[in-house]
Amino acid sequence: MPELRKDPITGRWIIVATDRARRPSDFVRQVVPPAAARVCPFCYGNEQKTPPEVLAYRQGGSPNQPGWTVRVVPNKFPALRIEGDLNRQGEGMYDKMNGIGAHEVVIETPDHMLTMAEMSEHQIHDVLRAFRDRVNDLKRDTRFRYILLFKNYGEAAGATLEHPHSQLIALPVVPKRLKEELNGSKLYFDFKERCVYCDIVRQETSAGVRVVTETDRMLVLEPWAPRFPFETWIVPKRHESHFEKAEGAAVENLAWVLRSTMRKIDRVLEHPPFNIVFHSAPLHDNPLAHYHWHIEVIPRLTKVAGFEWGTGLYINPTPPEESAKFLRESEPA
Amino acid sequence: MPELRKDPITGRWIIVATDRARRPSDFVRQVVPPAAARVCPFCYGNEQKTPPEVLAYRQGGSPNQPGWTVRVVPNKFPALRIEGDLNRQGEGMYDKMNGIGAHEVVIETPDHMLTMAEMSEHQIHDVLRAFRDRVNDLKRDTRFRYILLFKNYGEAAGATLEHPHSQLIALPVVPKRLKEELNGSKLYFDFKERCVYCDIVRQETSAGVRVVTETDRMLVLEPWAPRFPFETWIVPKRHESHFEKAEGAAVENLAWVLRSTMRKIDRVLEHPPFNIVFHSAPLHDNPLAHYHWHIEVIPRLTKVAGFEWGTGLYINPTPPEESAKFLRESEPA
Repeated sequence: MPELRKDPITGRWIIVATDRARRPSDFVRQVVPPAAARVCPFCYGNEQKTPPEVLAYRQGGSPNQPGWTVRVVPNKFPALRIEGDLNRQGEGMYDKMNGIGAHEVVIETPDHMLTMAEMSEHQIHDVLRAFRDRVNDLKRDTRFRYILLFKNYGEAAGATLEHPHSQLIALPVVPKRLKEELNGSKLYFDFKERCVYCDIVRQETSAGVRVVTETDRMLVLEPWAPRFPFETWIVPKRHESHFEKAEGAAVENLAWVLRSTMRKIDRVLEHPPFNIVFHSAPLHDNPLAHYHWHIEVIPRLTKVAGFEWGTGLYINPTPPEESAKFLRESEPA
Repeated sequence: MPELRKDPITGRWIIVATDRARRPSDFVRQVVPPAAARVCPFCYGNEQKTPPEVLAYRQGGSPNQPGWTVRVVPNKFPALRIEGDLNRQGEGMYDKMNGIGAHEVVIETPDHMLTMAEMSEHQIHDVLRAFRDRVNDLKRDTRFRYILLFKNYGEAAGATLEHPHSQLIALPVVPKRLKEELNGSKLYFDFKERCVYCDIVRQETSAGVRVVTETDRMLVLEPWAPRFPFETWIVPKRHESHFEKAEGAAVENLAWVLRSTMRKIDRVLEHPPFNIVFHSAPLHDNPLAHYHWHIEVIPRLTKVAGFEWGTGLYINPTPPEESAKFLRESEPA
């Protein structure tokens, strides 16, 4: 019997269709081909092919020269522009503003051929530090209300360049998905006077069936009402609303946990395309008692029925208890 | 300069990225190949290959035999099951219920090779009548709160069978997207004491720039804040919350309008995959002053960055004023 499950944060119902494909090998996979060595604007020696860097960690060399380990540059084809006024205005009953924002690329390593699962813990830690540093820099610009940190890997997940990279989009508005989480977790807090994510951490560590990995500081789990098969969340165990305020030890532990998670996903699902999205409180909010930053990893396994977009109704062929078991039991990183 | 626009119903902001690809010919299209004559469970003579029909309009013949013009059958691989109790229950902090519902297929024509753009107005009218008849039948089952009517066309849009068909899913919950529209339109009504969709009809007919087609009863438009290029809405001009209560003349006019819209999309975008989703008020609600049924047509043109799912932030390369112009100026049906 298929089951309807409600996401405790947003209130979204999903269908877990238990009699459809569900095992990792049942998916029509679009395996991401290995990177090919080719001329690439993100490789050493081609630094002039990108806009000048806004941040780099380097072992040697001068700015915009080889020697960096992580390099952040403005996106050459930005979705938003950094210069100008927001100029909020109406048009009859409608509302609009100028597309002001920042769109940056985090080049995660000089090595064109690496995947995230193959990176060292140290490299991933550098990427996380770069995220945090860029957010803390950009949030001084009061026009920005939210910064999206995300990674698209593989063509099926929207990546257009092969070289390992993540992206950052600073926005003058809070994106819808975040608003839903903020509203839903506020409702829950008003009712219970507890953070819904803290409650999830407590219930999941005690139940165990949806847990992938647990460390002192982080919980990796398959959520109760996942939209997608093998949707995986990484949630800090200690309450904190803003990722950029996470302390050094938490970010260090996150590097280990993220690497371990990506290795498990890579192994169980045989190198799938995926998206990673960071969820954090709006930049200028004070620390929020009801909201809790976390990371969502979504392997791209199912054929997209645009239907889900039109309706908000997700049909997931894999119960999270089963995907958690597959990931939990794959060799530790 | 890209522009941020807010959807007046749900409050979702989208980015219209005016300096990316935008003309119909700029999209990497996945043209749907013409149907191939092959053994098909939806063709005449194969009626025994589907579960027995729950509705058929026929010019002759007996039930589950050839002679029908439109035939509705239960989905052989349903996402939900019709038999059983909802059995709502908690699991710690979580909520769930049995996956009770109906999942039916509307076989739109006996002709395997037809596309919706090629169907006659009469055929499309029969499909719309079948939708209405099935909803009015299923809503007698008080377990169901919402019925989704939708069509996936082309593999990229999630269709797995070629023969022209639509689908219907009866649900014991209201899907998230509908809830958002209901909440958003209620907020608007509480503030303005007017229906937001009626206001859109008024503003759009007067502005004209986003109008594709207008008849006495229907307005076809590109919405102010479209998530996708060439996203197209069909909105009845007279206020009505429930599609299944639309009067005969409105459904007749809708058949003409839907055919004309699909022909325009087919011509301008060269036979793209698409989704059609009906949006209507929950089954057992009384007529609602704040909600207004309508149809959303979404051609599948852009590569899906799963990013949008994770964030609710949509980047649309085509301003609706431009897509409306292309559709408006393509030859009338």
